[in-house]
Amino acid sequence: MSALAGKTAENLKKIRETKPLIHNITNFVVMNYTANVLLACGASPVMAHADNEVEEMVDLAGALVLNIGTLTDGWVTAMIKAGRQASELGKPIILDPVGAGATALRTNAAKAILAQTWVSVVRGNASEILSLAGQESATKGVDAIHSVTEAAEVAGTLARELGTTLAITGPTDLVTDGRRTLTIEGGHPLMTRVTGTGCSATALIGAFHAVDKDSVSAAATALAFFGVAGEVAGIGSVGPGTFMIRLLDALYTLTPEEVEARCRIAKG
Amino acid sequence: MSALAGKTAENLKKIRETKPLIHNITNFVVMNYTANVLLACGASPVMAHADNEVEEMVDLAGALVLNIGTLTDGWVTAMIKAGRQASELGKPIILDPVGAGATALRTNAAKAILAQTWVSVVRGNASEILSLAGQESATKGVDAIHSVTEAAEVAGTLARELGTTLAITGPTDLVTDGRRTLTIEGGHPLMTRVTGTGCSATALIGAFHAVDKDSVSAAATALAFFGVAGEVAGIGSVGPGTFMIRLLDALYTLTPEEVEARCRIAKG
Amino acid sequence: MSALAGKTAENLKKIRETKPLIHNITNFVVMNYTANVLLACGASPVMAHADNEVEEMVDLAGALVLNIGTLTDGWVTAMIKAGRQASELGKPIILDPVGAGATALRTNAAKAILAQTWVSVVRGNASEILSLAGQESATKGVDAIHSVTEAAEVAGTLARELGTTLAITGPTDLVTDGRRTLTIEGGHPLMTRVTGTGCSATALIGAFHAVDKDSVSAAATALAFFGVAGEVAGIGSVGPGTFMIRLLDALYTLTPEEVEARCRIAKG
Repeated sequence: MSALAGKTAENLKKIRETKPLIHNITNFVVMNYTANVLLACGASPVMAHADNEVEEMVDLAGALVLNIGTLTDGWVTAMIKAGRQASELGKPIILDPVGAGATALRTNAAKAILAQTWVSVVRGNASEILSLAGQESATKGVDAIHSVTEAAEVAGTLARELGTTLAITGPTDLVTDGRRTLTIEGGHPLMTRVTGTGCSATALIGAFHAVDKDSVSAAATALAFFGVAGEVAGIGSVGPGTFMIRLLDALYTLTPEEVEARCRIAKG
Repeated sequence: MSALAGKTAENLKKIRETKPLIHNITNFVVMNYTANVLLACGASPVMAHADNEVEEMVDLAGALVLNIGTLTDGWVTAMIKAGRQASELGKPIILDPVGAGATALRTNAAKAILAQTWVSVVRGNASEILSLAGQESATKGVDAIHSVTEAAEVAGTLARELGTTLAITGPTDLVTDGRRTLTIEGGHPLMTRVTGTGCSATALIGAFHAVDKDSVSAAATALAFFGVAGEVAGIGSVGPGTFMIRLLDALYTLTPEEVEARCRIAKG
Repeated sequence: MSALAGKTAENLKKIRETKPLIHNITNFVVMNYTANVLLACGASPVMAHADNEVEEMVDLAGALVLNIGTLTDGWVTAMIKAGRQASELGKPIILDPVGAGATALRTNAAKAILAQTWVSVVRGNASEILSLAGQESATKGVDAIHSVTEAAEVAGTLARELGTTLAITGPTDLVTDGRRTLTIEGGHPLMTRVTGTGCSATALIGAFHAVDKDSVSAAATALAFFGVAGEVAGIGSVGPGTFMIRLLDALYTLTPEEVEARCRIAKG
C-alpha cells in the first residue's frame, strides 16, 4: 500500500504549505483540543456557529466539519445552513455523529444533516455508524458498544445507501464508500482516555479533504497520519495527561517522510 | 479510618470495572478538563444540555452532575428537567453551585435546583455553600472568601435543612449530612491555580456515587482519591501547567492499593 | 526603556498581591486556557455571559474582557450590557475583535461594542484591527493576512478616531493611543500554533489594566510580560503541546525581577 503511504505524506505536505481554513461547528467539550490539533498539523481552524454568519465562513473555508456532540435545535439549524452552502459550493463536509444512537435528538440530527446536505465523509465509532442504518442499536453515551467488525458487515451497503464515505474508527479503522474499502492500523490505547480524540480525527479528515478531493483517500490518509501520531505520542507517556500533550507535539513534529515510513493502510 | 480508606480503594476499583456513564450539565470553561478527569479515573463522561434530550441521557447514566458555572435561564430549565428525571429514577444528583453568592442568577438557580430535584450531594467552596444558607454572604466571582472552618459551623444544620450531603472543599475538605461528618486531607496548593479542579472534584463525586449509594461515603472517598492524586501530581510540578497534566496522569495511574495507603479521611 | 520594564514588574507584583477579578465574556474555544492563563499570572478569572447577571458580575470585577470569537446575537447584547455597566463605573474594558473582517456579524459586533461602550483597549491582529477602520480588508477566518507594519501606518489615526488604545500583536507588538506609541519584542513562533494565545494576551491586558489605569502602559506591560513568558516557555519545547503547558508554568514562576530584566519595550 505504498501508494497510499505516499499520498498520506503528500497530503500532509499540502496542508502545511497551504494552511487550509477548516470551519468547525462542533461541540463545547472538544473545541479547544480540536483547534489545537488542526493548528499542530498545519491547518487553520475556525469555530463559528451563528446562523447569520455560517454561510460567509463557509465561503472562506476549505472544508466544513459538523459535530453534534453538545447539541441543541438551534445548532442543528446552523449546521444544515452551513452544510447547504458548502454543498452548493462543492466544499467537502465531514460529519461526526457523536452519540447518535444514544438519544433521539442526536440520531435525528445526524439523519437530517445527511438528508439535507451533501456529506462527503461520516466519521464515527461503530455504534454511532450503526445507528445511522436505522438498525436496532444503542450507544452508551458517546462510547461504542459495537465493534468495528460488526459495523464493517453493513458499512459498504450503508455507504452506498447514504451516498457517503464512512470512516469507522476503533482499534483498527475502516474507510469505505461501498466500492473501495481500506483499513488503517495505528494509534494507542490512551486515545480512548482523552476526550476529543475521535472528534479530532474527524477534524483532521476535514484538513486532509481540503487538499484531497477523493473522500476515501482523504479519510484514510488522515486516519493513517493520526494513527502514526498516536503511536509516537504513546512512547513514554505516563498517562492520558502527558499523552494528550505529546499527541499535539507529534502532529507538529512528524515529517511527511516519517509519516510515509510508519503509516499502515491496507486494502480492506 | 482504615474502613473508609478501604472503601475509597473499593469504589475506585468498581469505577474502573463498570465504567459508569456520568451525565454532566456543566459550564463551558471546564467541560474539557472535567471529561478528561472522568476518563482518567475510569468513568465514561457525557455532556448533554438540550432540554429535549436530557431525560433520555439521564436514563442511560449512573449519576447526574449539575454545575452552574456559566449559566443562562435555558440551562437552568434543562438542569431541573434532568434533575427531576434523575430524582424519579433514584439516580444520584450532584450539584456544584459555582459562584452562588456572587450573583442573584446563580444563587437562585442553585436554590431552585435544590428545591425542585432530589440533590444527593452539593460540592462547593465555603462561600458558595454559605450562600445557600441565605446568610449574609458574598462570593468573589467564583472564589471563596470564607474558610471551611466558618462554613463547618453551620454545615450540619444546613445539610439537615436542605436534606442533602454537603461537601465543602478547601485546604481541608469537610463532608457532612448533618449526622455524620468526615474531614479529608490531601491535595496541593497548585489546585487553586488550575481552573476546574473544584468542578472536577464534583464530577468525581458523581463517578463515586454511581458505584456507592451512600452519599457521605461517596463524596468523602471521591475527595480522598482526588486529594491523593493532587499530592502525587504536585511532586515535581513546575507550575500549574505541568500540574494539570500530571493530575490527569495520577488519576489514571494510581492503583486502588496506593490510594488506600495514602488517603486521609477522619471523623470530623 | 527601563521605566516601562520597571512598570511591567510593578504591575505583575500588584496582580499577584491583589488578585483582581477579571470578568470575561469570551469564546468557547479559549475559555479554559484563558482562565488558566489568568490564574497562572495571579489574577482571578470569572466567565459569565447571561444578560441577567453580567451587570452584577461587572460590579465585582476589576476589568471586563469582551471577546467575539464564537458569537451569536444574544452574546453581543450581553457584551454591550456588561460594557455599559463597566463604562458607567469607570472600569476598563478590553475588546478582542476575533475574526473581525471575516464575517459581517463579527465586524458589526466589534463596531457596535466600540460605539456603545467605552472600550479602553482593543487587542487584535493586524487584519482584525484594519477591519475596524472600515478599509478594504479581509481576515482569513481568525488569522491575520496583514502585517503589523501595514496596520501601524493607520493605527495612530484609527486610535484617535475610535478614542481607544490599540494593541496590534504579531512578531513585534505595537501599542498606541494615537499620541504615544510603544513596540514590544518577545514571544515565540509556537504561539501561533496554540489556539487562544491572542485571546490570552487580551485577558492579560485586562489583568494589568485592573491594576494600572493608564491604558497604553497596561497594554504594553501585559504584552511585554506575555512576551517574556513565551520566550521562556519556548526553551526546550518540542511542539505546541509542551509549549502551551510550559507557557502556563512560565506565567506562574517568573518573578517580577526576572520579567523586568528580560522584557523589551521601546518607544515606537
